[in-house]
Amino acid sequence: MPLPRTQTTFVSPIVESRRWVAGADFPPDRPLLNVSQAAPAEAPPQGLRQALADAALNDVNAHLYGPVLGNGPLRQALARQMSRHYQADVKPEQVGITSGCNQAFAAAIAALCGEVDEVIIPVPWYFNHKMWLDMAGVAAVPLHVGEGMLPDPAEAEALITERTRAIVLVTPNNPCGVEYPAGLVQAFFTLARNRGLALIVDETYRDFDSRTGAPHGLFRMPDWDATLIHLYSFSKAYRLTGHRVGALAASSDRLFEMEKFLDTVTICPSQLGQAGALWGIENLQDWLAGERQEILDRRLAIEEGFPVLAEMGWKLLGCGAYFAYVEHPFDQTSEEIARRLVDEASILMLPGSMFMPAGAPDGARQFRIAFANVDREGIRTLFDRLAAFNP
Amino acid sequence: MPLPRTQTTFVSPIVESRRWVAGADFPPDRPLLNVSQAAPAEAPPQGLRQALADAALNDVNAHLYGPVLGNGPLRQALARQMSRHYQADVKPEQVGITSGCNQAFAAAIAALCGEVDEVIIPVPWYFNHKMWLDMAGVAAVPLHVGEGMLPDPAEAEALITERTRAIVLVTPNNPCGVEYPAGLVQAFFTLARNRGLALIVDETYRDFDSRTGAPHGLFRMPDWDATLIHLYSFSKAYRLTGHRVGALAASSDRLFEMEKFLDTVTICPSQLGQAGALWGIENLQDWLAGERQEILDRRLAIEEGFPVLAEMGWKLLGCGAYFAYVEHPFDQTSEEIARRLVDEASILMLPGSMFMPAGAPDGARQFRIAFANVDREGIRTLFDRLAAFNP
Repeated sequence: MPLPRTQTTFVSPIVESRRWVAGADFPPDRPLLNVSQAAPAEAPPQGLRQALADAALNDVNAHLYGPVLGNGPLRQALARQMSRHYQADVKPEQVGITSGCNQAFAAAIAALCGEVDEVIIPVPWYFNHKMWLDMAGVAAVPLHVGEGMLPDPAEAEALITERTRAIVLVTPNNPCGVEYPAGLVQAFFTLARNRGLALIVDETYRDFDSRTGAPHGLFRMPDWDATLIHLYSFSKAYRLTGHRVGALAASSDRLFEMEKFLDTVTICPSQLGQAGALWGIENLQDWLAGERQEILDRRLAIEEGFPVLAEMGWKLLGCGAYFAYVEHPFDQTSEEIARRLVDEASILMLPGSMFMPAGAPDGARQFRIAFANVDREGIRTLFDRLAAFNP
Repeated sequence: MPLPRTQTTFVSPIVESRRWVAGADFPPDRPLLNVSQAAPAEAPPQGLRQALADAALNDVNAHLYGPVLGNGPLRQALARQMSRHYQADVKPEQVGITSGCNQAFAAAIAALCGEVDEVIIPVPWYFNHKMWLDMAGVAAVPLHVGEGMLPDPAEAEALITERTRAIVLVTPNNPCGVEYPAGLVQAFFTLARNRGLALIVDETYRDFDSRTGAPHGLFRMPDWDATLIHLYSFSKAYRLTGHRVGALAASSDRLFEMEKFLDTVTICPSQLGQAGALWGIENLQDWLAGERQEILDRRLAIEEGFPVLAEMGWKLLGCGAYFAYVEHPFDQTSEEIARRLVDEASILMLPGSMFMPAGAPDGARQFRIAFANVDREGIRTLFDRLAAFNP
């Protein structure tokens, strides 16, 4: 007898970790430092808020159903922006808007896979990807990262079977922070194309890459859309997490298929969310450049401050975009330490075990630090508390 | 080799029918009458729009991630409203907010079913229910309606197998419009409870029921939440289609399971949509009562005007909430007639075949008329055009 889909899927680490701190009292002199979730903690700029208010008051269409794949003007604006960013020619009919980037991933999997198909996914993985594969009855084939927390295309190739449908990359990576080199992304593209697989590249953190220029050349490849499915989120760039707006780029044939999924799970993306994303693309590029500088400065603060922790035996395995990925020096598992850090150091951060298969030994030694919400002083406080912690 | 999920799922009838009229030019003296989709065509009242604008401008939380199952105040307000409506005691922890009612259905199926499980669903069905069952690899077992377009619990019982997990009802019904009698809903509840199945009751059109008082007594049954999963939408009541806010009521155990699904496909419902729904519950009950009267008057206009069509051989099979369900008198299939009605009468309405299994003979003879957007004059025009149409 098959189990219901949700029973074969684990609880979201974000939801579970919220329960760890629900109702907890933290000392006034040691308030909670929450580095568990990659999410802006502030509202978008006043101009964007005003644009949302104007649309709510004056635009009837902001309250009505819209096209399943998103509004034309937003698809056009995103295609133009992507064309500039990737120095390529992305067409509006090659992009679609979704209710957040998780949904873009789910739609891609629905268009690629049936029951018992396989998808190769680097480990540590982004847990919502794994959750959706479980929910869809698709086997997640783990590809353990190596040197520099990077996956190896040759190792991926060895995992391909006749049931493999796709390889998933996240760059800059969640949870490891590392920016995948253009040549590595290209090698995965070539592998996928040669083996008739899709390459899903989640670039949610694209706008916080430390590199300038196109981060890879995939959109310049002939017939890129026969292989590549690109995922994007407006949540981080314009602080729109509460509005649920993401995007994907793929062939119009694949978008036609994904449209069935999107229609059935949400009908259309939030109209106000789309209005906000469009306003952001058209007006917030300079502001976003400043946001990127701030995130890059926090990353620098992590790297500069890490020696305090290194002295205690911690290791910095990866760092970039919103995340640092670290190894702790203790005998206890990261799960045990995570719970004690809540009580003893008022720190909420997710153990590595939440980003890999149950029982994978690395998970017990690692943590993800989502530092984007924490300023330089907060990072210093975080490191001081971690350095003083000894289970 | 399994096909990808979307390839075993048909294209949304709404999306497909939009393509029939895309780019079409309609004569100035015969503009398009669109009775294909059950959706308000106007913005919500000014007060609600102002509430959305205020939240966008002044409430930081309106832009941030919220709880997967929705915000506490909205869950509390909905539980109170449901308790009044059903003369029962529904608790906030028994309700959850979703990104539209389609998503509530998808979440319920994910929490109940695995691959090859079965769900009994009256035919004609709401097509997005069937699409999601296809997408989830769950078999939709058709229960053909009988007298008065109502399903028969005894026939349903005969369809139960060891793989059956749920029975789905929609009342008032989409597409047939009929309001299921309280006794019938109760009989299905008793059947489901006795056989250990879930009863999913989609009450999207609840607020436009012609009956006063509780439409059924299920929420007053002891341990109702061990059997019932109730679905609701804020889209029709408060004209919030573009904001994607729905709801479900179930046991907190089942909500815990559904939370995994909801987290993975959208993370949380739109914050502004939730602000709108909450404002609507708190401020629009009198307004909604007027909306209901207007819809009931349009329903009356359908019934009063139908003799014009009856003379031409049409039959009114069901009528209520947003829908009339009719039988045409022609030799051609409803699919063929639907396409010709676009060109020859500027009418867009969905053939019955879109609400049942491929090849079901009734589908070729039937149409759904979604009349909620059409006033009395529009209904007269619609009937005049249909009466004059002869393929």
